[in-house]
Amino acid sequence: MLLVVKIGGAKGIAEHIAALAADIAACARDGARVVVAHGGSAEADELGHRLGVPPRRITSPSGHVSRYTDQATLEVVIMAMAGAVNTALVRALQNCGLPAVGLSGVDGGLLRGTRKEAIRSVEGAKVKLVRDDFSASISSVNTALLGLLLDAGYVPVVCPLVLAQGGEACNVDADRAAAAIARAMGADALILLSNVPGLLRDAGSPGTLLRHITLDLADRYEAVAAGRMKTKYQAAVEAARSGVARAIIADARRDRPVSSALAGQGTVISA
Amino acid sequence: MLLVVKIGGAKGIAEHIAALAADIAACARDGARVVVAHGGSAEADELGHRLGVPPRRITSPSGHVSRYTDQATLEVVIMAMAGAVNTALVRALQNCGLPAVGLSGVDGGLLRGTRKEAIRSVEGAKVKLVRDDFSASISSVNTALLGLLLDAGYVPVVCPLVLAQGGEACNVDADRAAAAIARAMGADALILLSNVPGLLRDAGSPGTLLRHITLDLADRYEAVAAGRMKTKYQAAVEAARSGVARAIIADARRDRPVSSALAGQGTVISA
Repeated sequence: MLLVVKIGGAKGIAEHIAALAADIAACARDGARVVVAHGGSAEADELGHRLGVPPRRITSPSGHVSRYTDQATLEVVIMAMAGAVNTALVRALQNCGLPAVGLSGVDGGLLRGTRKEAIRSVEGAKVKLVRDDFSASISSVNTALLGLLLDAGYVPVVCPLVLAQGGEACNVDADRAAAAIARAMGADALILLSNVPGLLRDAGSPGTLLRHITLDLADRYEAVAAGRMKTKYQAAVEAARSGVARAIIADARRDRPVSSALAGQGTVISA
Repeated sequence: MLLVVKIGGAKGIAEHIAALAADIAACARDGARVVVAHGGSAEADELGHRLGVPPRRITSPSGHVSRYTDQATLEVVIMAMAGAVNTALVRALQNCGLPAVGLSGVDGGLLRGTRKEAIRSVEGAKVKLVRDDFSASISSVNTALLGLLLDAGYVPVVCPLVLAQGGEACNVDADRAAAAIARAMGADALILLSNVPGLLRDAGSPGTLLRHITLDLADRYEAVAAGRMKTKYQAAVEAARSGVARAIIADARRDRPVSSALAGQGTVISA
């Protein structure tokens, strides 16, 4: 079984890293091959504040919220995500006895993509064109590099950077990166862990968790997903539509979060 | 031929990265297997200043100068070196058509080591004991991980962190890291590139470059190496004594720095 586990970068996740690592190590000991992908929004935001480069968000006309990544912000993102968060995760896995190797999408051209020349940003009643944004969509995944490491017994830990067509490093949404990896690797499950129990019909009420969404009904639930959940949900649905047997949006903060997600705790999206 | 090329982290090296990467790519096309190791002192110093964690140095009673790496400094070092510098180097190599994979010593336990409980620091006329320093010496190198990547055609790019015995990430001198890798891999040459032409008999005069030092005379020249050159020189000598055919201290700022070093430009230390 090949699992792609994405560990969210929201505030409050960092304190759960040891428990996450222990559960991933347990899954690996049970025979699973695991690729870890991660975000690092909270760490990048905090570092940006400390460096006088406060985070800004872009809301697309279709309602997607993303990080506005100009050159200074890109440097912050690289230091926070490829430096701090990736090293902390690798270290946590190593300390659970699991050999882990940190990679960014730049390494070996692991994630190649296309930087958009201009993106549309909704600001109040206006739509502006942003031209200095270093964000990219993913066009290919170096599955051979991941396979090389997995076959040798390593757990790749992937940071969401992309090597763009012009040779620039670019920021990419971490959920989309995890989904692209899961699709390209033909994973059995994509598990997106963050600080929510899953897709909630009413974002404020954990009791309204949607437990199972079949692909034929997936579009109908898209309106339920707002803000950052919108991209997460779409990434999960796209992965499931591309052959990943199950995409699961689940809570990183519970005991044994990966095992629980595989047991059905969270929102399971499947055919 | 296996080369270990260490690219220094001194101020003024960053602008030479593209030329360095092009020369490393040319060596690789000529058939060399290359492991790149790097420092990042200038970047770590600058980030530390920006974050209000200014750099401090420790001078050991034997005259070695090293970074005083308390917890806050360790975080700065990880972000600057594993984040910014490593990603920039990998990207530069990728953009020369060379598949490169960035690693820190934490990845796969690439560099394991021993953190010192207390280190002695000369402060004026006194010697103090420093107990909160996250620095380590290297005890083992995961040569299998480097071999796996080299055999698959990748250039490993190694950032000087160590996974210490207690599971901590620790700082390690980048020259010593490169020397440890060269020794463990049985490299044909260790090339230490920085912002000096080599070991100078008189540190201020490039005309006093020592071109060739044989191992039987190596100890005699140790007194010539002062400050940061002291550690660099010792690392080079230790590598040459441990079976690395040539250790070369050379200038990163010249044209084709790696090829020039191999052609004998710099200080060559050999049996």
